[in-house]
Amino acid sequence: MNFDSADAITIAAAVREGNVSAVDVTKAALARIATRNHQFNCFTTITAEAALADAARIDKEIAQGNNPGILAGVPFAVKNLFDIAGLTTLAGSKINAENPVATQDATAVAKLRQAGAVLLGALNMDEYAYGFVTENSHYGATHNPHDLLRVAGGSSGGSAAAVAGGLVPLTLGSDTNGSIRVPAALCGVFGLKPTYGRLSRAGVALFSSSFDHIGPFARSVQDIATVFDVLQGQDDRDPICTQRPAVETLHVTSLQQDISAIKIAIAADYFTKGAQAEALAAVQIVADALDVTEYVSIPEAHRARAAAFVITASEGANLHLDKLQRRSQDFDPATRDRFLAGALIPSSWYLQAQRFRRWYRDRVREVFQNVDIILAPTTPIAAPLIGQQTMILDGEEILIRPHLGLFTQPLSFIGLPVLSVPIQRPNGLPLGVQLIAAPYNEALILQVAAALEAKGIVSAPVIFNG
Amino acid sequence: MNFDSADAITIAAAVREGNVSAVDVTKAALARIATRNHQFNCFTTITAEAALADAARIDKEIAQGNNPGILAGVPFAVKNLFDIAGLTTLAGSKINAENPVATQDATAVAKLRQAGAVLLGALNMDEYAYGFVTENSHYGATHNPHDLLRVAGGSSGGSAAAVAGGLVPLTLGSDTNGSIRVPAALCGVFGLKPTYGRLSRAGVALFSSSFDHIGPFARSVQDIATVFDVLQGQDDRDPICTQRPAVETLHVTSLQQDISAIKIAIAADYFTKGAQAEALAAVQIVADALDVTEYVSIPEAHRARAAAFVITASEGANLHLDKLQRRSQDFDPATRDRFLAGALIPSSWYLQAQRFRRWYRDRVREVFQNVDIILAPTTPIAAPLIGQQTMILDGEEILIRPHLGLFTQPLSFIGLPVLSVPIQRPNGLPLGVQLIAAPYNEALILQVAAALEAKGIVSAPVIFNG
Repeated sequence: MNFDSADAITIAAAVREGNVSAVDVTKAALARIATRNHQFNCFTTITAEAALADAARIDKEIAQGNNPGILAGVPFAVKNLFDIAGLTTLAGSKINAENPVATQDATAVAKLRQAGAVLLGALNMDEYAYGFVTENSHYGATHNPHDLLRVAGGSSGGSAAAVAGGLVPLTLGSDTNGSIRVPAALCGVFGLKPTYGRLSRAGVALFSSSFDHIGPFARSVQDIATVFDVLQGQDDRDPICTQRPAVETLHVTSLQQDISAIKIAIAADYFTKGAQAEALAAVQIVADALDVTEYVSIPEAHRARAAAFVITASEGANLHLDKLQRRSQDFDPATRDRFLAGALIPSSWYLQAQRFRRWYRDRVREVFQNVDIILAPTTPIAAPLIGQQTMILDGEEILIRPHLGLFTQPLSFIGLPVLSVPIQRPNGLPLGVQLIAAPYNEALILQVAAALEAKGIVSAPVIFNG
Repeated sequence: MNFDSADAITIAAAVREGNVSAVDVTKAALARIATRNHQFNCFTTITAEAALADAARIDKEIAQGNNPGILAGVPFAVKNLFDIAGLTTLAGSKINAENPVATQDATAVAKLRQAGAVLLGALNMDEYAYGFVTENSHYGATHNPHDLLRVAGGSSGGSAAAVAGGLVPLTLGSDTNGSIRVPAALCGVFGLKPTYGRLSRAGVALFSSSFDHIGPFARSVQDIATVFDVLQGQDDRDPICTQRPAVETLHVTSLQQDISAIKIAIAADYFTKGAQAEALAAVQIVADALDVTEYVSIPEAHRARAAAFVITASEGANLHLDKLQRRSQDFDPATRDRFLAGALIPSSWYLQAQRFRRWYRDRVREVFQNVDIILAPTTPIAAPLIGQQTMILDGEEILIRPHLGLFTQPLSFIGLPVLSVPIQRPNGLPLGVQLIAAPYNEALILQVAAALEAKGIVSAPVIFNG
């Protein structure tokens, strides 16, 4: 039996039942990476030796009758801003390559390994997570498995492409303004950005602390739910995570298929403008499958996006200020000028943006008193070509890089949980649809996604002929 | 009997016991204001009619055998940034004079009135509370009762001078970087800046929200403790105040005189430099009276002051941005340029200052593991002349306006409770000494102050020959 395109829980079940060894699963994944990574440029580091040792240990546990965990033997990899003990955390930067190695795994990496998953390495990204395309001038562009001439999206481009291209069934990424959802959409896989503060960011190189989230990419809703569940829980290493309200653990196995009680609506106004017709058509496919005809307005979303730009540029620039002053020539040209501009933003703009943010959070909370899940496009277009600078939206030629997050930024701005679900189109590139909920309502999102998956509306098949 | 120079609780006791009527106390205060306010320029609004009506109501209650409160019949007045129902809240600004009247008293004003105190009016201040001298270009300078040629300090200059000059025994002010403590010291009265968030700021025009405190000026420690106790308690109108940890109410009547168990030290390093000899001598007088010889260092206080400048200028400028853009010519020249400069501070400086603030708060918390009360000068010099631009500190001629808060800014920066106690000097101007504690330890401060008062080291006599 071949597990090359299986999802994580299928692999884990087979490993636990002895149908395949963790070592064989790991070897097969390493073989796929050896054959195909040069096409995609997903991996920046491959930890083959450590992975095989981990896999052997899992097989030994199984031989001894122990249960090595819900992700037993599942190969995974992480965006290269997650600390991996013994490796230098690059965060897509050339300067960071000079840093000492991490002494400890990021909490999320440690939790997946404790659940039996086998770490295969680190994945490409936009420098310092500041981008939507993963065209990294130091480590190269990541190519979209659906069309190698096209971008994978970013900034977690390596994470999305590695799942879409069949290298590993499971990856982690981070999302500040859309960096999980945009590449998930462009590569046609599931990508979850949970509620702000719900998953620990300890050991993750931050970009803009008041916006940064981590989350999984996978091929099935069950995989997303499983990883989300494994990663949940307070973490003393992450002060943000310890502040979250106590919430009940989501029990993956009880994912309800009956979603008739869940109130779903389509995002109106802002989220219907500035998108190419095919992006809106993708939303309509999901809406039709769910019998959704209601529309709901998220007020002032365009201002939320503007405020998100101001805050992330300010916080990101402050974080890297020392390096910007000393070594700006060693930055990726695609991030350098934006960071420099961020360093010059007046504090008054920043404070105004934070003040608006509180107002907007209260308004959106009111919206969720009448609806449980909101549908919106993930990106305004399908994957553009590598090197392509502009796109046509509403008849106007505009820059691609700053606008791929058009529909993701106003949501992460206030930490709402969002799953981008993949719509595969015959003879076309995939697109994503965002399922958006009120804070801490990930369970509702996963229930709706599971229903869509059961109907065959959303899916993330492995692309072997990129 | 004459209550012109009595403290508040003495007046209240006399009123409650029928030794004097609230109306007579009020009339006497109004007479003093009529005779002497033109010398000091404390009051910007006098609410004589409402005051006499309030006083009559209190007398009626007493006649009916009711207890009108712990501050029965005590005349008081408030810095003109506290809302008074029916009056326009000036906050020292000409532009604000065009605003509609307040519809509701500030919470602090309402609480004092509920405790039986009688409001006589609103008091002069630096425009928008941005200053240490109360030389207000719209409403005139407030004169120091100890020497009419000298400043009262600021920004709550009217509040300090009104108590020192015998107009009223009790006033309220606000303190962002030293605006209660500096004028208290220069006018020779008690001034308390409580722990950040402990007293409600609802209905108070803010300057820099993450720094703004309110607090009382008075002639005795018992008065300070009484007012502090009256003002305490959660307030749904002030989101900051509702977030404070639950604390036990301070019982004024149990002010311990035995302070032998309280560990007291003198602030070293930063707090001993840049002060004229007489300011350090005032600290030594207090230390000697308490048998204190230990020194303690508050690390990086100079950086704390710099960071306080950056944050208050940024937050203040953002708060007034609209007016700065439309009507900068209507600002006081003494605040305009600083606000404009604040609007141009890069967000990166602001973020860096906030980041430092977290670090500094943790370091100072460590200091308070070994000491309960720290002594420091309130101001580096006694009251300068009105119009005086520079002073000599450590042999260097420096500007007065930005440097009067040298020793107050690093403390309010992290919300520590501080009482400035007055040292009266024969043939000299008064000076203040700061009693500083860890957050929520106001009771310790008041105990030490009460002991100093009992020994005759600190006192706030009314000055009738200014």
